[in-house]
Amino acid sequence: MKVGIIGVTGYGGIELLRWLKGHPHIKVAYLGSHSQVGIDLVDVYPHLEGQLSHVIDTELKAIDMDLIASSCEFVFLSLPSGVSSQWVPQLLERGLKVVDLGGDFRLRDAEAHEKWYKKTAPDRISQSKGIYGLTEFHREKIANAEFISNPGCYPTSVSLGLAPLLLHDFIETKGIIIDAKSGTSGAGRAAAVGTLFSEVQESIHAYKIGEHQHTPEIEQFLSDLTNKELRVTFTPHLVPMTRGILSTMYGQLTDKAKAAGITTEGLVDFYREFYAKEKFVRIHKSGQFPKTKLVYGTNFCNIGVYVDSRTDQVVVVSAIDNMVKGAAGQAIQNMNVMCGWEEATGIDLLPLIP
Amino acid sequence: MKVGIIGVTGYGGIELLRWLKGHPHIKVAYLGSHSQVGIDLVDVYPHLEGQLSHVIDTELKAIDMDLIASSCEFVFLSLPSGVSSQWVPQLLERGLKVVDLGGDFRLRDAEAHEKWYKKTAPDRISQSKGIYGLTEFHREKIANAEFISNPGCYPTSVSLGLAPLLLHDFIETKGIIIDAKSGTSGAGRAAAVGTLFSEVQESIHAYKIGEHQHTPEIEQFLSDLTNKELRVTFTPHLVPMTRGILSTMYGQLTDKAKAAGITTEGLVDFYREFYAKEKFVRIHKSGQFPKTKLVYGTNFCNIGVYVDSRTDQVVVVSAIDNMVKGAAGQAIQNMNVMCGWEEATGIDLLPLIP
Amino acid sequence: MKVGIIGVTGYGGIELLRWLKGHPHIKVAYLGSHSQVGIDLVDVYPHLEGQLSHVIDTELKAIDMDLIASSCEFVFLSLPSGVSSQWVPQLLERGLKVVDLGGDFRLRDAEAHEKWYKKTAPDRISQSKGIYGLTEFHREKIANAEFISNPGCYPTSVSLGLAPLLLHDFIETKGIIIDAKSGTSGAGRAAAVGTLFSEVQESIHAYKIGEHQHTPEIEQFLSDLTNKELRVTFTPHLVPMTRGILSTMYGQLTDKAKAAGITTEGLVDFYREFYAKEKFVRIHKSGQFPKTKLVYGTNFCNIGVYVDSRTDQVVVVSAIDNMVKGAAGQAIQNMNVMCGWEEATGIDLLPLIP
Amino acid sequence: MKVGIIGVTGYGGIELLRWLKGHPHIKVAYLGSHSQVGIDLVDVYPHLEGQLSHVIDTELKAIDMDLIASSCEFVFLSLPSGVSSQWVPQLLERGLKVVDLGGDFRLRDAEAHEKWYKKTAPDRISQSKGIYGLTEFHREKIANAEFISNPGCYPTSVSLGLAPLLLHDFIETKGIIIDAKSGTSGAGRAAAVGTLFSEVQESIHAYKIGEHQHTPEIEQFLSDLTNKELRVTFTPHLVPMTRGILSTMYGQLTDKAKAAGITTEGLVDFYREFYAKEKFVRIHKSGQFPKTKLVYGTNFCNIGVYVDSRTDQVVVVSAIDNMVKGAAGQAIQNMNVMCGWEEATGIDLLPLIP
Repeated sequence: MKVGIIGVTGYGGIELLRWLKGHPHIKVAYLGSHSQVGIDLVDVYPHLEGQLSHVIDTELKAIDMDLIASSCEFVFLSLPSGVSSQWVPQLLERGLKVVDLGGDFRLRDAEAHEKWYKKTAPDRISQSKGIYGLTEFHREKIANAEFISNPGCYPTSVSLGLAPLLLHDFIETKGIIIDAKSGTSGAGRAAAVGTLFSEVQESIHAYKIGEHQHTPEIEQFLSDLTNKELRVTFTPHLVPMTRGILSTMYGQLTDKAKAAGITTEGLVDFYREFYAKEKFVRIHKSGQFPKTKLVYGTNFCNIGVYVDSRTDQVVVVSAIDNMVKGAAGQAIQNMNVMCGWEEATGIDLLPLIP
Repeated sequence: MKVGIIGVTGYGGIELLRWLKGHPHIKVAYLGSHSQVGIDLVDVYPHLEGQLSHVIDTELKAIDMDLIASSCEFVFLSLPSGVSSQWVPQLLERGLKVVDLGGDFRLRDAEAHEKWYKKTAPDRISQSKGIYGLTEFHREKIANAEFISNPGCYPTSVSLGLAPLLLHDFIETKGIIIDAKSGTSGAGRAAAVGTLFSEVQESIHAYKIGEHQHTPEIEQFLSDLTNKELRVTFTPHLVPMTRGILSTMYGQLTDKAKAAGITTEGLVDFYREFYAKEKFVRIHKSGQFPKTKLVYGTNFCNIGVYVDSRTDQVVVVSAIDNMVKGAAGQAIQNMNVMCGWEEATGIDLLPLIP
Repeated sequence: MKVGIIGVTGYGGIELLRWLKGHPHIKVAYLGSHSQVGIDLVDVYPHLEGQLSHVIDTELKAIDMDLIASSCEFVFLSLPSGVSSQWVPQLLERGLKVVDLGGDFRLRDAEAHEKWYKKTAPDRISQSKGIYGLTEFHREKIANAEFISNPGCYPTSVSLGLAPLLLHDFIETKGIIIDAKSGTSGAGRAAAVGTLFSEVQESIHAYKIGEHQHTPEIEQFLSDLTNKELRVTFTPHLVPMTRGILSTMYGQLTDKAKAAGITTEGLVDFYREFYAKEKFVRIHKSGQFPKTKLVYGTNFCNIGVYVDSRTDQVVVVSAIDNMVKGAAGQAIQNMNVMCGWEEATGIDLLPLIP
Repeated sequence: MKVGIIGVTGYGGIELLRWLKGHPHIKVAYLGSHSQVGIDLVDVYPHLEGQLSHVIDTELKAIDMDLIASSCEFVFLSLPSGVSSQWVPQLLERGLKVVDLGGDFRLRDAEAHEKWYKKTAPDRISQSKGIYGLTEFHREKIANAEFISNPGCYPTSVSLGLAPLLLHDFIETKGIIIDAKSGTSGAGRAAAVGTLFSEVQESIHAYKIGEHQHTPEIEQFLSDLTNKELRVTFTPHLVPMTRGILSTMYGQLTDKAKAAGITTEGLVDFYREFYAKEKFVRIHKSGQFPKTKLVYGTNFCNIGVYVDSRTDQVVVVSAIDNMVKGAAGQAIQNMNVMCGWEEATGIDLLPLIP
């Protein structure tokens, strides 16, 4: 299948390219860029030299709908927020299948979009065409969709961690705390003082407390799941590392869970059963917890759980590589489902350790 | 005044030495080591070469009570847990003043000590001699004490962050979540696979979830403060940096606080007033939050607060340098109070930026 | 083909395992360990959970020659220096093909071995069976060998960088300076104070100046190449990163080179031609130089060159991933050659960027 | 004395401010900025909050010569290259004493300036007013100067390392190789893709090979010293750390040195004697070499030496903190000399370890 990447020069874009090299059914037929048209991609990223046998033409092209439609059947968009919304409808009109790695179409509620993204909400894509796609939970819809809005990095790590608890009423829907920690690659490749090495090294800080645009995305997913209006307290942090998100999540045990005498061991078993068929979700045994290093460069989500019977809290820790399961890897996973291929095709590597 | 340091070859010990160089009233008269007796300290730490004008004899000596008593008036202990408890009573008997940077005497409750430290609790030091000393809260007792058990690194960052809220009933005493992140220096200088550079770099993980020995120390302090049996959920993390602790804390607004219509701005003002006389506590303005880099190498505790009116949670973020306010710096601050000197004497430097 | 790995729990061992997963002709039939016999490999390295479909039995086995001979046709050894020499002859006797990632058999000269390794030299393997294998230069011998001593990490980066110049008399054989910089993974997974995160972070230093055991290995290779007794000044450094070696090399232009009016552009062309058929050697264009990040997680060696006409020096910079081209990757590359498979089989991934 | 800082919002500027806080003879009376006039410095650098008791007015002021002249006696400039040259003559005219941390006035030769800086050379300051000031070598001239051009970071580390050898004819003046490694703070606080955390982390690379503007500065100093036209091969590298420069230098032993049978031990003794009176130069004992961590946050230059009798090369390794001895620290050291104060006044701290 011929695929195109719009926004290939960002970190998300080249990560797509890294994975697509090993994908047996793909040729990359279009590389689109906003600002570097006419340049050869290897001049932007010299590590790609000699490695683009899966790319038909390595010259960066303008974002031209007809050109894309004439050369591709499938398109990934990896663009700053507010940009992809202008292209997606046109691509769908031309009969292409599309996965958007950006946030433009994640929220169904226009008001929420405007509040949190501080941008006018784009017209929504019709539900018949398809929408938000966290693979493990929306697999059937994804299989029939023409368009997938790929989940955000934080929401992916959070949703996979909390869904089993909420689906089974093990924790209260009120008072959920999400303390998430991300590496710098999530901030992209734009030059900025705040992500300079000299500013990030030997430091950690919280940012956008109470204001991060991934908050309503998490709430939308968890509310859908529970059929309740659910709100979470979400605090992202920047950690001095490039890749990885660790989300530490706290929920209060329900009376039901307490009555059932739930233990850490029991919860581990429950999670293992819940995710038994999932190739990319791994549950740590009792007493062990994820490190982001354990999923480095891969599409895995590792999860560890703990029942704090002293305080009636459940602690869930999940780790993903924000560039893979949190972006390009899940986008390809979704493509595989959309195309009816085995879900792990092309994204089945071991973590880079050490 | 002549001071001694028992355990000078650990990270806590040399950090004491770094600060004491600039202290106008101090000569270091004794350097005690468990395992490197007879060696010159400069051979262990070549960065000290030529810089020990404040040290009378740079040779490491055995831990000998009479030798210490004959050469010092004041002693710092910086030793692994379970070790200082054998020495402190003997030092006090000999009339020395003592600050212990370790955890042996922090918990009043022997049972709690045994449960969390997994060690037999030592005989407690009598309250008349003095005990746990978080300078900002125990200043008067410290001034009259002969012995101070210096607070742990995590508890220092947590207690300074939460105390104002709890003292004024702004948050519930139930459901407090503490998500703390530390650099590797807290693990000390012992060779261990888990703190090798290759294992820590590009990774973050939670550890000792529900089992960290600083949990009861936090609970003891906050319970004393509120006269309630208070329990917290405390999750420490290891971050790929050497120095610094960031504690992100979550508490549920009380009805009182909600009725008062408390806002972030209001809470900032309240914290600023609360800590108005404190030299080492700094409150960020509304919308700004601490980075550990802002306190790097200093005795400051920086605090930022946020009222999440969507979820009725207060988020408090505090940052300290675990080696300074979390260990050696606060120990010297306590010594200054014990000796009647200006509290910031010798520990008044600017952070190292960048 | 069934292969075994002796020393699988070290960094070299698991890196072999990472690559072998994607190798179409391999099943791993034996995992040998010195100290952790009976344990499941996943308990040592949880990142491998669910990912060992290419491993027949994940339990660590004792180093037992007959067991290995009965289960494998090919064996990799990844052991501390001085250990593999006892096993290699026995493996060869039993008819196995062997690649040793350690240093025991790299030096032909027993005296040199004893001087630099400070260990008794093992009996040499007969040349008819095969020996030192830098794939790009010894391909034909490797194809017919039963045993390959895999080059050291530093020597690989240095030899690939300097060989073209020396083969064509562009630089003098005297006065060659090699200033090499390595990440910490080269030091292995042994607990040691010197490689703790707190000691390595925010620091760089040179070590073993004039005494590193890779010096005679470099000299042996370059002397063979030039038929001259060649000596180099080699200075390794430890850099605060996990993977990667950058070698910056300096040689004095010969009169021949000066007479030919050699320029940077000309030298780039020469290198490109020299390595034209090599899949894993990439030459940067004039004015560009390698970063270790450009080869991160891959078997590439990137090389940049510069002719300093002011000082009549050539500067060559080469970058490899020490764990891949400097260890496991080249070992598999050699296996591919020994087995007559396409040389890049299983080791053809893109670098992890960012 | 009242001093001003032009360019205080850069890394060099705030580092000056950090040190001046502890200087007993200084009040900072003027903070000048190009782009942030009217803003309070604490709003740019929140770590300074409450810590500017040594600053008379913390509001950033325009660069106004009369304002500066009316408020200060002494001025530091810390500006991008090409900017300070317009201000220095005007400041001197107004009778101020000046130290310029930038490169505008370091080279005496206008042609060299234009070639290496790719900028028109400014009119030189007359030698009677004073010029280039590497404190350890130009102390007497500095004492009588009104203007000092502070040495560059790389040249400081190199000159201190090589001067003893060249002054005593121990190494040849031809064929000197300087392989230098720097942290990112040397690149300043400008937003740039190349110094983003995601680009620098886990990577090392050489840059500006043969073209770095510190090359002629090194050559000028060493040529002055030896009265010979000396040229060096200088290769800077960027290392994933914030502070620190390590320069590894190689020189060929002269016949004189060989005849004298010079050894590493002998050379260590010679360096120790050479620098016996220097407070900020420390020589490692035989077999030990500097780490940048050993000088972290201080004005020290640590030096280690090695005689490689196999190759007749001397290897010298020097470490400085590029922000201190390589910039702000040496600037204050020079101010102390200019003002007749004890040279270490205000810059006498211990390194931050770990």
